[in-house]
Formats: sequence, C-alpha cells, structure tokens
Amino acid sequence: MLTPIEDGHAATPQGWRAATAACGVKYQGRDDLALLVSDWPAAAAAVFTTNRVKAAPVRYDMALMARNPGGLRALVINAGNANACTGPEGDAAAAAMAQATEQALGLASDTTFVMSTGTIGVPMPLAKITAGIATAAGGLGDDGLALARAIMTTDTRPKHGALRVALPSGGTLTLGGMAKGAGMIHPNMATLLAVITTDAAVTPAALDAALRRAVELSFNSISIDGDTSTNDTLLVLANGAAGNAPIASLESPDGQAFLEGLTTLCRQLAQAVVRDGEGATRFVTITVRGATSDADAKLAAMTIAKSPLVKTALYGADPNWGRVLCAIGYSGAEVDAERVALRFGGMDVLAGGLPLPFDEAAASDLLNVPEISIDADLGLGAGEATVWTCDFSENYIRINAEYRT
Amino acid sequence: MLTPIEDGHAATPQGWRAATAACGVKYQGRDDLALLVSDWPAAAAAVFTTNRVKAAPVRYDMALMARNPGGLRALVINAGNANACTGPEGDAAAAAMAQATEQALGLASDTTFVMSTGTIGVPMPLAKITAGIATAAGGLGDDGLALARAIMTTDTRPKHGALRVALPSGGTLTLGGMAKGAGMIHPNMATLLAVITTDAAVTPAALDAALRRAVELSFNSISIDGDTSTNDTLLVLANGAAGNAPIASLESPDGQAFLEGLTTLCRQLAQAVVRDGEGATRFVTITVRGATSDADAKLAAMTIAKSPLVKTALYGADPNWGRVLCAIGYSGAEVDAERVALRFGGMDVLAGGLPLPFDEAAASDLLNVPEISIDADLGLGAGEATVWTCDFSENYIRINAEYRT
Repeated sequence: MLTPIEDGHAATPQGWRAATAACGVKYQGRDDLALLVSDWPAAAAAVFTTNRVKAAPVRYDMALMARNPGGLRALVINAGNANACTGPEGDAAAAAMAQATEQALGLASDTTFVMSTGTIGVPMPLAKITAGIATAAGGLGDDGLALARAIMTTDTRPKHGALRVALPSGGTLTLGGMAKGAGMIHPNMATLLAVITTDAAVTPAALDAALRRAVELSFNSISIDGDTSTNDTLLVLANGAAGNAPIASLESPDGQAFLEGLTTLCRQLAQAVVRDGEGATRFVTITVRGATSDADAKLAAMTIAKSPLVKTALYGADPNWGRVLCAIGYSGAEVDAERVALRFGGMDVLAGGLPLPFDEAAASDLLNVPEISIDADLGLGAGEATVWTCDFSENYIRINAEYRT
Repeated sequence: MLTPIEDGHAATPQGWRAATAACGVKYQGRDDLALLVSDWPAAAAAVFTTNRVKAAPVRYDMALMARNPGGLRALVINAGNANACTGPEGDAAAAAMAQATEQALGLASDTTFVMSTGTIGVPMPLAKITAGIATAAGGLGDDGLALARAIMTTDTRPKHGALRVALPSGGTLTLGGMAKGAGMIHPNMATLLAVITTDAAVTPAALDAALRRAVELSFNSISIDGDTSTNDTLLVLANGAAGNAPIASLESPDGQAFLEGLTTLCRQLAQAVVRDGEGATRFVTITVRGATSDADAKLAAMTIAKSPLVKTALYGADPNWGRVLCAIGYSGAEVDAERVALRFGGMDVLAGGLPLPFDEAAASDLLNVPEISIDADLGLGAGEATVWTCDFSENYIRINAEYRT
C-alpha cells in the first residue's frame, strides 16, 4: 500500500537532514549548494550516465560505489558548474568536495557522494564551494524543498516527492526524493540528477537490484531531446532508520512493496522532469502494446518519443499517424505494418495498417491540450512498454540557440 | 578524370529521354509526373529504405530487381501521393503504374521502375496517373530539368547534376542524376528519391557493388532530422550507350573511374538535399578523424549530425564544443575524452579533451555563415568519415507543426 506525502521531499524519511548555501558559482541571489546527510550509515545504489565522456563527479562516485556501497552518510551537490571536461583538476575538485563535506560533518572518509550540474569545461571555483559546504554543514535541518530548489539550473520548478510504503510484514517505510533536469546553460547540455532517500533497511545488493528495475520503468523511459548528458546520476540511499527487518530480496512481500514504492517515486520524478522539458507545451504518454517482447515495445516507444517529426506534429496538435508509423518502422522493433493499430488521445486513427476516417477538426481539438496519449498496438505479441516525452516547440530552438546572442 | 557538366541532369547521358505531365494529384498548375526512358535495356542497381514500413512502390521495385536486374527500360515517378500505408490497393496501383508505362511505350513487362513521393495513407488516384503517363509517353525529349522539377514536393529547388568520366582504357562515360527530399506534407514524412542514369556498359553485379560503395559515402552520410522515411529509393540505371568495354569489376582501372564518378555525383545530389533541408540556414560538414575504425568515425559523425542540441547551437552560431563532445560520448564509438580535439570553422576549441581559450565574439562571427565545418580528432586510430547535415531552426518546427492549423 502506497500513500503519497504532500510536499514530500528528500529529507522527509526518518534520519535525513538537509541544508543549502549560496556559493555564487554562477547564480546570484539564490542557494546553489545542497547538502543531504543521513544520521546513520546508509546503503547506496546508483546508476550513472552511459555517455563515454563522464564528468569528474560521476567518475568519483563510480569509484566510491565500488569502495563503500554500504556506509554512505552524505551527498553534496552544486549547481552552476558541471565539473565536466575539466581534466585532472576536475577529478581533484570532486574529491575535495567530498573531503570538505566529511571534515565539516566529522564523518569518516569515503562516505560522501558528489554531484555537479551546470556549465561544462569551466574549472570548479573550489574555494567558493568549500565555503558553502562549511556554511551548510552548520545549518542542517528539514527543509528538503530548499534542497530541491538549490540544485535547479534552467529548470523552471523544483521536482520532489515522497510516499509511504506499508510493509506486508508490518511497519511503514518512507521514501523521498528530488530531481533536476531539462536545463541547458552556456555552453552546456541538460544534466539529469536524481536522489531518492529512504529510511528503509535494505541490503546493498537488494537496493541495487531494486534501483535497476525501477530506473528502467522511470528515468530510462523518458526523452526530451535524445541527448544523453555527461553528468546523469540517479542515487538511492537507504539508512535503515525505519527499523524494519532488513530487506534482502525483492521476491519477499516486503521487497515487492519496497520495489513498488521506489518505482512509483522514480516515475513521479522522471515525469516531473519531462513536464519541465525545455520549451515543452505538452506532456505525452506513449504506450506500445502487442510487440514480440517488452524490449521491442520499449524500442518502438522510445523511437516515437525521440522523433522530431512526431514531436513537432504534437506541438501542432496534429494526429499525424504517418509519422508515428514511420518511427515504429525504423525503430528496429519487429513490426508488420499491416497489423498496426494507432490511437491519438483515445481516438482510433489506424487499424490493420490502414487509416480510419476521423474528423480532423475534432481530432485537432482533442490534441490541443497539455496532456496527450499515443497508443500503438503492433498486433504481434504480448510485449508492452510506456514512456513519456514532451513536444518540440519553437521555444526549444530559441532556448538552445539564442543564449549566446 | 571527372568533368562536371553544367546544368546536367538525368537525361544528359546518351540514350536517355525524359518527359513530364500534369496529373493534378495534389499540386495544380505544375507537372507532377516524371518519365525517364532508356533507348536500350539498362542494368539496374538500387538501395531502398531500411524502414520496416515500406511504401507500395518500394515493395514493387524490390521484387522487380529480383526478377529483372539487367533489362530495365523506364522509370515513372509521381509527386503528391506516396502510395504508402495504402494496403493491397496500393500494391495494385504501383503495378498498374508500371504496366501503363510499359503499354504506352510498347515495352515488355517487368522493365519499369515506379517511385512515389508525397502524402501517405491516401489512395492513389490511378486514373489521373495513367492519363499523365499516356501524355508523357507521347512527348519524350531531353528536358531533364523539367524532370527534376516534376518530382519536387516541398523542396524549394530542383536537384540534378551530371559529369563526364574519362576512362583509363579510352573513351568517355556520362553520368546524370536527380534527387528530391527534405519535403514534408500533410500527413507525411520526408521522402528521399534519387536516380542516377549513365550510358556506361556495366554488369549488374558491378553496378550493384558500385552503388553500395557510393551510397555509403553520400546518401547514407547525410541527416536532416534523423527520421528514415517509408519511400527512400536510390536507383542507378546503366544502358551501355557509350559503347565502352563492359565494366565487370570495380578493381579494374575503368571500374575505379566509374566508381569515382558515381560517388561524386551521388555526393553532389545528397549535399543538394541537405542544402534544401527544411528550415535550414546552414550547411554543415562534419569530419571525424582518429577513430579506431571508419565505422566508428561515421557513428560519431552521424550522432553529432543528428543531435538536436548541436543543430540548435549551429543555428545560433555557437561553437558549443560541449554538445559535440557529449554527442561523441553517447554515439557508441570508442572514445577517450582526454584525447579528443575539436575545431569549429577551422578554429581550435578543444585539445586533449580540455577547452582552449578563444574569442567568443570572433568565433560567433566565424560561424554566422551559410557553410560551417566541424572537425573532430579522436586521437585513437586512422578511422575517418565525413557527413553532412544542416542546422535546426524555428522554421523547421513551424514547417512541421503548422501545416494543419
């Protein structure tokens, strides 16, 4: 049983505290450093960008995960500088951020994660950052909303949430989290960062397995522009403060409940990222059914989600089934054009690969709304997937072309 | 030795005749049917869209290529209706177009190719088309420019060319051709059609081998929006009218000369398609060197060419090396970020994975021109590839979003 927590955030679960500070790295008059601390050692699981060009904090965290996956205490995040393409000095800066946090909080070494988001190719102003870390370390509290705001770059709103999981074995777990993304800054690319905290007791192995399953159905099921950043990181930290019997398997009833809660929160945060997509005017849910496998369904759905022609048609409130069918055709998924059925906004437009008559004015009205669904049935098997994307508007072009003028 | 032929076209080589007609399928007041005829049986080679959803004429031509690759006589093309997603009636219409052409010209059956471009999902108005075929068949001449104009959809200009190849063994061959593409019509997608004619004597096997090598370095090295259409077809027809000793191998001196001519003409037509890309304001040449293989270099170059972030930066005359490096990073090509060097418009901006200082105003001026180059050196090996693309402007969004409003 899941219960949403209104205005929940990453400091909502038991044993988590938060603080922010203004370092003045790029933004003035706002906090740009976020510090999240667990009162107890936390198990950690993380997934990182698949980009071969990885930012320094990603490299630092990957090594840290290998050294100490079970005893994490803190996470420090700065916004305004991505610490990417910064060479050996960048690696040293990421390590220095972790060490400054550990010293300021009196923690053992190798207990702090580091994330950065913002401009790439600019040296980190380390003195400003460490001063901010010292300030934040002195002001830990429960303001997780401020935390979600401090990590924003060109995001237009903070993205956060929390929910409660009633365990089949009795007792309650809480999961909280935040994310940022869809922003792009000179000379930079979108970076997606997300953190999930929980007071659950979970073994590192079970936590890792849960994260990998949840991410497939959430963050790996969204696309804004098809560009994979250098800094993407999704981190989940479980400190055990809820006092539940430790979850060691996802097949147990408690494990299943935890997985459901984690997946739900990840999906909520991932959808919040899409809703804040650059220039987006519509939130689009794409479901592909009847594929020969779930993997094929996802391949087809993600190809539709990435197609500039589909995305511009959605901006124009155009039930352009030809572009959707075309995208399915080149997706690499198994497809027989003569079996495909398509619906736009619940309206049937194609069946057996052939167009159905529909009222174009009514169809355009149906699609001229903030939330649209596209449903495809490939008519071949039981494979199914749902992904989320946004439309492609002139503002996307402006945001990404004009900042230097 | 290659010699360009000014205002050359698909009817320039010996033994080729052309005619056009107005069928009124979608466009009024212009010709929309193109007929190209060889005075002698021609060897044919063709490559077709890899989209799993193939238009009826593509299916017809694929079967025809299997039945009769050595004795082709004619090609009929209509613009305004793509004959895609039209079911069994569409297949019958494609066959009927071929038969009508063969009857009107007194040709044997299985000697005529069919191509269609335009709206998809709309039944073919076959009576209009066959009337146009009869008209065109009665007016064959040498106006290959009219031919290139008759196949346009939302193209803003015809794309055609020809060149002469001096054979090492003596004598001269001529190659001519035309292409259309970059257009998009309600409710449709870009369809790329290209035809190369030649008076060379070439065996079908050698012609096929030459086409597959030429297409990799030309049409398979361009991208406008990353969407692969249902109708893409590239056809080369060789009628032997030049009277050269038949070319049976690309390893012979004559074979190499022919391949060079074919590749050059294909590249010229492919570049003309990119220059006419929807909403494009810049023509961009992307070269990747130093990859571990040519295939890796092409993977990286095509990923750069398809990235919406790179394309919007180019529109904004922004030497945004971060987005280029990011695209290389997720391309799947082998890459070591610390070895990558990048140049924009000949200006060094990145070396050893680290940014170089440059004057941003001067850089923006350098890029605010109609033709831009991006050069990447991965510093790993001898693999190399060059591809061509265009920028992404607000007009691309408008063209593809607004036609239904």
